Amino acid sequence: MTKAVKMMFPEVKLGVGPAIEDGFYQDFDFGDEKISDEIFKKIEKKMRWIINKDFKIEKKTLSEKEAREAFADDPYKNELIDDVVAKGEDISFYDIIDGEGNPFYRDVCAGPHLNSTGEVGAFKITRIAGAYWRGDEKNKMLTRLYGVAFADKEGIEQYEEMMREAAKRDHRKLGKELELFTFDEEVGSGLPLWLPAGAEIVERLERLAKETEERFDYKRVRSPHIAKEKLYLKSGHLPYYAEDMFPPMEIDNEKYYLKAMNCPHHHKIYDATPKSYKDLPLRFAEYGHCYRHEDSGSLFGLMRVRSLCMNDAHIYCTDDQFEEEFQKVIQMYLYYFDLFGIEKYQMRLSKHSKEGLGKKYVDEPELWIKTEDQVRKALQKLNVPFVEAEDEGAFYGPKIDVQIWSAIGREFTLATNQLDFAVPARFNLTYVDKDGKEKTPICIHRAPLSTHERMIGFLLEHYAGALPAWMAPTQAAILPVSEKHLDFANEVFEKIRAARGRVKTLDTSETLGKRIRQAQTQKIPYSVVIGDEEVKNKNLTIRLYGEKKDVKMSVDEFLEKIKYFPTYKKN
Amino acid sequence: MTKAVKMMFPEVKLGVGPAIEDGFYQDFDFGDEKISDEIFKKIEKKMRWIINKDFKIEKKTLSEKEAREAFADDPYKNELIDDVVAKGEDISFYDIIDGEGNPFYRDVCAGPHLNSTGEVGAFKITRIAGAYWRGDEKNKMLTRLYGVAFADKEGIEQYEEMMREAAKRDHRKLGKELELFTFDEEVGSGLPLWLPAGAEIVERLERLAKETEERFDYKRVRSPHIAKEKLYLKSGHLPYYAEDMFPPMEIDNEKYYLKAMNCPHHHKIYDATPKSYKDLPLRFAEYGHCYRHEDSGSLFGLMRVRSLCMNDAHIYCTDDQFEEEFQKVIQMYLYYFDLFGIEKYQMRLSKHSKEGLGKKYVDEPELWIKTEDQVRKALQKLNVPFVEAEDEGAFYGPKIDVQIWSAIGREFTLATNQLDFAVPARFNLTYVDKDGKEKTPICIHRAPLSTHERMIGFLLEHYAGALPAWMAPTQAAILPVSEKHLDFANEVFEKIRAARGRVKTLDTSETLGKRIRQAQTQKIPYSVVIGDEEVKNKNLTIRLYGEKKDVKMSVDEFLEKIKYFPTYKKN
Repeated sequence: MTKAVKMMFPEVKLGVGPAIEDGFYQDFDFGDEKISDEIFKKIEKKMRWIINKDFKIEKKTLSEKEAREAFADDPYKNELIDDVVAKGEDISFYDIIDGEGNPFYRDVCAGPHLNSTGEVGAFKITRIAGAYWRGDEKNKMLTRLYGVAFADKEGIEQYEEMMREAAKRDHRKLGKELELFTFDEEVGSGLPLWLPAGAEIVERLERLAKETEERFDYKRVRSPHIAKEKLYLKSGHLPYYAEDMFPPMEIDNEKYYLKAMNCPHHHKIYDATPKSYKDLPLRFAEYGHCYRHEDSGSLFGLMRVRSLCMNDAHIYCTDDQFEEEFQKVIQMYLYYFDLFGIEKYQMRLSKHSKEGLGKKYVDEPELWIKTEDQVRKALQKLNVPFVEAEDEGAFYGPKIDVQIWSAIGREFTLATNQLDFAVPARFNLTYVDKDGKEKTPICIHRAPLSTHERMIGFLLEHYAGALPAWMAPTQAAILPVSEKHLDFANEVFEKIRAARGRVKTLDTSETLGKRIRQAQTQKIPYSVVIGDEEVKNKNLTIRLYGEKKDVKMSVDEFLEKIKYFPTYKKN
Repeated sequence: MTKAVKMMFPEVKLGVGPAIEDGFYQDFDFGDEKISDEIFKKIEKKMRWIINKDFKIEKKTLSEKEAREAFADDPYKNELIDDVVAKGEDISFYDIIDGEGNPFYRDVCAGPHLNSTGEVGAFKITRIAGAYWRGDEKNKMLTRLYGVAFADKEGIEQYEEMMREAAKRDHRKLGKELELFTFDEEVGSGLPLWLPAGAEIVERLERLAKETEERFDYKRVRSPHIAKEKLYLKSGHLPYYAEDMFPPMEIDNEKYYLKAMNCPHHHKIYDATPKSYKDLPLRFAEYGHCYRHEDSGSLFGLMRVRSLCMNDAHIYCTDDQFEEEFQKVIQMYLYYFDLFGIEKYQMRLSKHSKEGLGKKYVDEPELWIKTEDQVRKALQKLNVPFVEAEDEGAFYGPKIDVQIWSAIGREFTLATNQLDFAVPARFNLTYVDKDGKEKTPICIHRAPLSTHERMIGFLLEHYAGALPAWMAPTQAAILPVSEKHLDFANEVFEKIRAARGRVKTLDTSETLGKRIRQAQTQKIPYSVVIGDEEVKNKNLTIRLYGEKKDVKMSVDEFLEKIKYFPTYKKN
């Protein structure tokens, strides 16, 4: 739709402009002209005019010559035409036809488009950004306008309300206010430094991952953060994944790379001792730190970083064991969703494409169909909501992408869960089966808690920074009303510390009211006010975060709350 | 002494050959001649002859001309003479004088030497190794002979007994037998991969460090494994420590280095929020993974690696707080020594030298003397055994090197504990003092559990692989006598698992005797045999590792043993 705005600026060139997950965008080449937010209103006005006219939209196929003529003065469209010609495909165009039946605007596009401009409902241009032509920083910087479209005005209003709420819950803002993490120019972009309060959250997530994996009979392993080039040549990360990896370091005439994935190291650990069918399924878990060379322009708070600490694991199993193992992995996801109150989630089964076999995908058509079917059946049996996507698998097998929605309805991509029927063979991983023959296991890659960077970014928005007590950096604030209540306050403080609780005392140098507000600003789950009554009865009065009513309980009852940790219980 | 063996091989050139921590060595250039252990006996025979002759040893100072003449045919000694001449120092020689008063052998050496060869007691040449001339791999490879010397034969015998025991307890051998860790050629030298059993030990050490530091009021932080070049230029690691660091990776026109130390990252975390005197002392702890480019020839099992995971912390405090903080650090060391039954230890106070000021050491003579005195007093007050060493400090302040001895009497260098009065200022770290003025804190660097690589290497030798139950990879082996005891065996197994214990069942496919031996070979602390009596009484019979007598206890009593973890108790 936005393409028609070109009519306002006849001299402006247009780049690409697809629909995206949360709306649409269009790239413009405004030449030397300075562009500001002012332009939003102008463009929106023109768009509304076009929508009101209800112009028809028609798809056409043109010859190369016709196509070149139509965009003689537009280098960007010509480049797109070059690509289509190189692939030997048809050059498809969309014409917007005005009331008199004449082409009002023509664009090269694979489609699909609406039937007429009147079908567009409510829309809004939301923001402006710089973007390299086709995402390549060697190309010219264009101006990208983002927008959203909804069926009606109410949709826009709901969206705007969500965005206002999201701004309040922005993990970067909360991270600063609650002193959770920081970035430093001399350390480097995308490399978070966890301050004490943030590191406490990480500790709890790590404990949650480890204790849950323990219940699911995983074995922990540990691997270094680097390996030789030859390891990644064997795994296939080089050269296919090279762009996402940090450049090598050369030592003793060998190239070493920072690891972008833990799997090759885990395969080596599998291979370190002989295995028999009795050892399978074998589940290796590592809270492993990887490094990925994300483009500096795409770095975003904790959501997109270069240093990623993953709740990672690899499950080696036989073909027969796959379904049960895969189901257990999904159960673990569901357990975490339930724990964090994630009510809306969706899984996407990403499959191979016939055309990609031997190129993007391992050339094993039968294994692809079989394993995709295995994954589909496992999802169906668990009654998990999922969609299927063609041509989006990993190169070694089908994968599940997991989407979750925060409490305010924003979507996050959490993690993937992959079936790998190819790489174990590349590493010559084997087990001796019951019949005495050497066989190759399949491998499930999974990381349900994602990276702790992204998970904490999500949880900060989800809980608006007020994390549940079991993972909060400080669980309790002790507020003695006056000096004479200090003794009991200190006694309670020491008891909480002895129970390994995270507690701080807000001393009497400020008024009680101010301290209660402080504890709320710091989003501390429990405020423990200690006055005459508490000292006399040796009892506690607890105010829960965000609530007005106090709760009374004994010190021992409160210690139980402090000690609570939601370790998965086995049936 | 060994230098005199040259008389056996007039054509052989000699490199350097000092006394070392556990004996002495001498480098030889045998030309193309093949050298085997056979030569040990020949050399020892000649050495005994020289000792029996009781030749006098005299120190002399020669002119450069005399010195050059004496070693006209020896390029190695000439190179040493070059150095002495370049420094403008005296060229000191030692002559061994024979019975007729003639020089029997002459060597260029700074000394000191014995007064006569008869003073040498018992000695033994122990091993042979290749060594580059002056440790530089660009130089020629010489042949290095190692030896040990003692006052008498008994000393040699004790030493040999210790070495035989050490060979049995060799952490590389135990690491393989108990499947604790491995190295892989495609991953890289000096980069251990922790197999599940080894990773369990690491988990326990990490928990020990974290819980102990929690009791001592440390705050945990987390930092990435890389940083920009400019951070290390600021800290002074570049260029002074560059040789020990991995080479840089270049991204976005910036150089990034793998961290060899955690301190610069911690300084950045300190600096991320404003600090007042009320925040001090501030103790940042990280179980942090560093990378050091150790020479490939010096890599040795877990004792010298390139990937080091440190129980690291930095304590920021005022000058007044230093003594108490330092004492608490030493208390933590002593707590760990006591926990691991380390009975013999020694600290070495490494100081500056006047000559090194402004070169190897920060040019603050008064601060050096003051801080060395502070450290000395703290050690004296705690009654900790220590020696003092001139000219061995860190560049930013005095340090304590900690030596410990294993159960069989072998010495290990554990860790250092350093006072840093210089680097916080380089990072502009400040706190606002009571008087409202900005001041610079001092910093204590400490890592009492060293790296887990080295600590586990030490503990494997110290305990001969039979780790205490709280840190053993598997705490208990369950041995049902026959099939009919399986139900109760499984019940006990599940109870131990629910208590987060590490347990395995050795099933009835082997004889009981064989399984008891298996549990012993795997050095599992508790073997739990379950037969008729145990099933009937719902009691347990426990055999402790390495003991012949069984102990009876209830399941609950046993679960308490399984759950025991030695967290430091506050007074």
